[in-house]
Amino acid sequence: MIIQLQPEVSSQELRDLQDFLNQISYKTKQVTTQKGSYLVGIGKREFDIRTVGFMPGVKDIHKVSDSYKLVSRKWKVDPTTVDLGDGVTISKGSLTLMAGPCSIEDEDQIRKTVDHLVESGIQIMRGGVYKPRSSPYSFRGLGLEGLKLWHKIAREAGIKIISEVMREAQITDMYDYVDIFQVGARNTQNFTLLDELGKIDKPVLIKRGISGTIDELLYSAEYVFSGGNEKLILCERGIRTYETSSRNTFDINAIPILKEKTHLPVIADPSHGIGIRDYVPAIALASVMAGADGVIYETHEIPHKAFSDGQQTVNFNQSHKLASGLREVYKLRKELLLN
Amino acid sequence: MIIQLQPEVSSQELRDLQDFLNQISYKTKQVTTQKGSYLVGIGKREFDIRTVGFMPGVKDIHKVSDSYKLVSRKWKVDPTTVDLGDGVTISKGSLTLMAGPCSIEDEDQIRKTVDHLVESGIQIMRGGVYKPRSSPYSFRGLGLEGLKLWHKIAREAGIKIISEVMREAQITDMYDYVDIFQVGARNTQNFTLLDELGKIDKPVLIKRGISGTIDELLYSAEYVFSGGNEKLILCERGIRTYETSSRNTFDINAIPILKEKTHLPVIADPSHGIGIRDYVPAIALASVMAGADGVIYETHEIPHKAFSDGQQTVNFNQSHKLASGLREVYKLRKELLLN
Amino acid sequence: MIIQLQPEVSSQELRDLQDFLNQISYKTKQVTTQKGSYLVGIGKREFDIRTVGFMPGVKDIHKVSDSYKLVSRKWKVDPTTVDLGDGVTISKGSLTLMAGPCSIEDEDQIRKTVDHLVESGIQIMRGGVYKPRSSPYSFRGLGLEGLKLWHKIAREAGIKIISEVMREAQITDMYDYVDIFQVGARNTQNFTLLDELGKIDKPVLIKRGISGTIDELLYSAEYVFSGGNEKLILCERGIRTYETSSRNTFDINAIPILKEKTHLPVIADPSHGIGIRDYVPAIALASVMAGADGVIYETHEIPHKAFSDGQQTVNFNQSHKLASGLREVYKLRKELLLN
Amino acid sequence: MIIQLQPEVSSQELRDLQDFLNQISYKTKQVTTQKGSYLVGIGKREFDIRTVGFMPGVKDIHKVSDSYKLVSRKWKVDPTTVDLGDGVTISKGSLTLMAGPCSIEDEDQIRKTVDHLVESGIQIMRGGVYKPRSSPYSFRGLGLEGLKLWHKIAREAGIKIISEVMREAQITDMYDYVDIFQVGARNTQNFTLLDELGKIDKPVLIKRGISGTIDELLYSAEYVFSGGNEKLILCERGIRTYETSSRNTFDINAIPILKEKTHLPVIADPSHGIGIRDYVPAIALASVMAGADGVIYETHEIPHKAFSDGQQTVNFNQSHKLASGLREVYKLRKELLLN
Repeated sequence: MIIQLQPEVSSQELRDLQDFLNQISYKTKQVTTQKGSYLVGIGKREFDIRTVGFMPGVKDIHKVSDSYKLVSRKWKVDPTTVDLGDGVTISKGSLTLMAGPCSIEDEDQIRKTVDHLVESGIQIMRGGVYKPRSSPYSFRGLGLEGLKLWHKIAREAGIKIISEVMREAQITDMYDYVDIFQVGARNTQNFTLLDELGKIDKPVLIKRGISGTIDELLYSAEYVFSGGNEKLILCERGIRTYETSSRNTFDINAIPILKEKTHLPVIADPSHGIGIRDYVPAIALASVMAGADGVIYETHEIPHKAFSDGQQTVNFNQSHKLASGLREVYKLRKELLLN
Repeated sequence: MIIQLQPEVSSQELRDLQDFLNQISYKTKQVTTQKGSYLVGIGKREFDIRTVGFMPGVKDIHKVSDSYKLVSRKWKVDPTTVDLGDGVTISKGSLTLMAGPCSIEDEDQIRKTVDHLVESGIQIMRGGVYKPRSSPYSFRGLGLEGLKLWHKIAREAGIKIISEVMREAQITDMYDYVDIFQVGARNTQNFTLLDELGKIDKPVLIKRGISGTIDELLYSAEYVFSGGNEKLILCERGIRTYETSSRNTFDINAIPILKEKTHLPVIADPSHGIGIRDYVPAIALASVMAGADGVIYETHEIPHKAFSDGQQTVNFNQSHKLASGLREVYKLRKELLLN
Repeated sequence: MIIQLQPEVSSQELRDLQDFLNQISYKTKQVTTQKGSYLVGIGKREFDIRTVGFMPGVKDIHKVSDSYKLVSRKWKVDPTTVDLGDGVTISKGSLTLMAGPCSIEDEDQIRKTVDHLVESGIQIMRGGVYKPRSSPYSFRGLGLEGLKLWHKIAREAGIKIISEVMREAQITDMYDYVDIFQVGARNTQNFTLLDELGKIDKPVLIKRGISGTIDELLYSAEYVFSGGNEKLILCERGIRTYETSSRNTFDINAIPILKEKTHLPVIADPSHGIGIRDYVPAIALASVMAGADGVIYETHEIPHKAFSDGQQTVNFNQSHKLASGLREVYKLRKELLLN
Repeated sequence: MIIQLQPEVSSQELRDLQDFLNQISYKTKQVTTQKGSYLVGIGKREFDIRTVGFMPGVKDIHKVSDSYKLVSRKWKVDPTTVDLGDGVTISKGSLTLMAGPCSIEDEDQIRKTVDHLVESGIQIMRGGVYKPRSSPYSFRGLGLEGLKLWHKIAREAGIKIISEVMREAQITDMYDYVDIFQVGARNTQNFTLLDELGKIDKPVLIKRGISGTIDELLYSAEYVFSGGNEKLILCERGIRTYETSSRNTFDINAIPILKEKTHLPVIADPSHGIGIRDYVPAIALASVMAGADGVIYETHEIPHKAFSDGQQTVNFNQSHKLASGLREVYKLRKELLLN
């Protein structure tokens, strides 16, 4: 159950509400985010919600049968809009593109990528400065200095930044230089990281775990939301299966299912989803047709020279065509309105 | 290696070819299909293919590094067209739609479905008369009599028929009443069934196994082709994974990968691919955007009254809109030409 | 629900029973096997089973909440013994070993294997004469002639034979020469094959599907049992997962779970279960410790020269030690009686 | 390549070594652990290792073809012994048992568990004070105060402690109160946590990821080892598959494979591996028979009243019998010496 509280709710009113809920065997958690205050009730007993609805301090109350609550569409049908400022928003009513290299490499690479994005009308640049790597001997990214340089160049061009955060200590370091914190597929269930991201006022994109379920992704978002941060974006990036012809199996089913279950925006990552450069466009286009609110993909001037993930990175020429194709597909999807 | 033989190749020329290949440690298999005669050579030794290319009786020769040969695009880049007669073809240059119920139930259901298909411009009707069921106590289909009735009604309306064959003995029974034999996901590696289907002159659609790899699907097609039947269609229908939010995980990656690996048409089955009615259109549209040559889906006048698979069956109204949406998507894909 | 019928049940009594069950919305299926006659009732309505229990012709009645019925331990707690004659039985009270090559190759190989088995006290020899192969160009087995030769040599030595049947037509051909028909992992859901095996009076071992669930394996057994053949053995042989360090993932969990769910004997196949020769003994021993009623494994005089599966085949020396180790483990398991 | 350095290697000698390796295109990483100093070389070029072997400061050099190096058995065949002090060691030559509740709940529960362990001769107690939970609304553990209380009681009884660490900050907090830091299945690839654990001088047990590969587990261990901590234990705890009859699929194959690939001790967690109380003993016994160096399982006085994981927790009576059974199995395995 989710109780939306009046902005001016008094602490006495709040205590009364909590007492009432505890009496009927509900545990409560108070949540205050950028957009409002909530009391989340966890319990199973049936009761007449109007009893609570009429109590002082209550703005609205909703039963939510899902075990994740705040991210569920069962209480908030309106899609969430994540606002990055300067007119850049991520939401159902538009198509968001994010592109860039797997790893930030050097100034030249940043400049060329930024130029390419500007030219292709892409407003958000992706890139890693802290890289999670299976082997401790692999390149682990340029770190904070790389991020600062990137931020300087991107800002001048009006480009927003999304980059992966791997540890709590990096949140403070990165805070001034990113527009979206990305939680990678290996950290989807790093609950301490999620807890910390709930405390900040900056958008967070959570990737689905390497073999995470759809519900686990929603729970991870619930961690951040119930920690106080509503600015959330979910990302399908392929799951681990027995099939070895592709790096991962892009779970296109997850897109319409997530769109039905949550009010949060859902983005597709076709680069990791299939892992083979020449097929990235097909999966990108398909994901938008299936209902994705945006696409994040890897692009590099000379993919085979990229420090990492070159095999799944499209070049700028492919990227330019892809961006325009994605917009056409999005336009057609809106016309069809099939779902 | 695939040697395309001259139509007028003599048996002496053929023996000479085989002798030569055996000498360089290649096993050979002679294949004669509706479209030509081939000698398939299986071996690893390197040799100058011109030596064979100039031997009498040889029309052309291709090295094929894949372990499946005849279905590979490495020797035949041109996409295969499967002709059902009366102007109905399945191939890269068009979009094929197949729709109908999971199970054929009775005359009324057949007539209503046929009418719906005619109205929606869909030329091929799907439906099961022999149903593979996990439990021996479930409804197993109307059998041959149901097929004959269906055939009569469909023919009058100019509708083609695709239906699943489960055992060799059914091939003869069904032969006069189907236009495409469907091999179901539980029979993809029923090699004795595949062997028999190689001996007939009627199109065969092979579904990917319940947890079959892309390569296994191609091998299964190779069975039928090397048995003598080139009229083949492949179908992605979702694979088994750990995710339980959907019935199967539709492997959208398989579509561009198969299109690259084989010259055979590739069809998508979104009904089994996601298994939830309301999301079938999203997956259908996405699969065409990803490159599918067609879509096969389940439709029924009143889905929740269907004998089987009602939960993944769209009603006629949804189907009508879907068919028209799919054509729009196909049109856009051809314009984009991104792959 | 399972009604065990009196041997002398009259057809009028049977009709009365069926009428009664139909009236309370149960579908019925009459099953007659080597051991008895049953009426299986499929339905959900609650009723007092004593009403049926007192009707004429009824020997006993059991509610079975599982959707598979005849193979469930919910009506038959006593473990089933499968008798191969000559004192060779497969059941809970003993440990059954089956060993032999992947493929039957020639007389010499058969003789040497038979000698090895006799020496090691193994009473059942495995071997394929019809081989299911992913590629149509691979060796497909010696066929019926190979089986006849094998049968002759094995019989002289008192060795029983288990071999895979791939198609219905082979059942008659093989009938006189095998002691157990094996249904391979690609045919676990070949329902037409299962239907036919239900009609014969010879033991059938069913392997779990390549990515079959435990329940699907039980359903497949239910097909054969409800077809009239109670002489059933189940076999865990590894499932397909994302892990590539081993050929399959041997699902050791399946052993105690199957033993709890069914009264049928459960055998382990460590050769396919892990697919790497040197680790086959570890998995074999573990499977017996986990509760398996027997083990089937691949052995060959010179594994790397085997026509197929050499990489997972132990040599005779390893096999000899393994057989004796398995008996020690079985003995210890009986002493521990932990489950 | 791994170069074991002389204890008294000079910094000039070290520089010379690094220079030489860099010249032949090897990247180097110097590693200093509790047991020695190493120079790990990452590269592919072939060269005569004797050239390096004779350079000053070098104690020994080994080529290691695996991409993980320090944890590989290719350079260190001798099994690693992890010493917890007071005569408690984990290694190939003995069987280590660890048991206890999923969550530490209160003093009474701790005392009863400690008593049970002492009585059953189990020297290490498991228990969670920081619990990773999919839902933010679930019980998250007693935290540091719980750990201190537990430590006090356990120390008095001579029982060692293993407990999960979830974040870097907890390492310092927990350091004085645990004997083994456990890295949970959701943190196997939390590389920042692994980096920090490489800096401490206390044993670390790493669980295989929820759907981690065997190689990924070895890489994660390589992180800690190359960070400076050799005191490592690996743990197989079941992987995520499509099968829903059990919580996870215990990958028994992983045990002999890991034992072959690494010199580190390998422990089995049957509680998470199957997730069903009554079958935990079968899997535990099987895992020891397959070669595990120890077992970690969940036990509780009254399992169904446990705060978490009750369904997979055995009671003290079952635990007592299991511990003694495991020792019998271990004894038999040593006699068989089959692998």
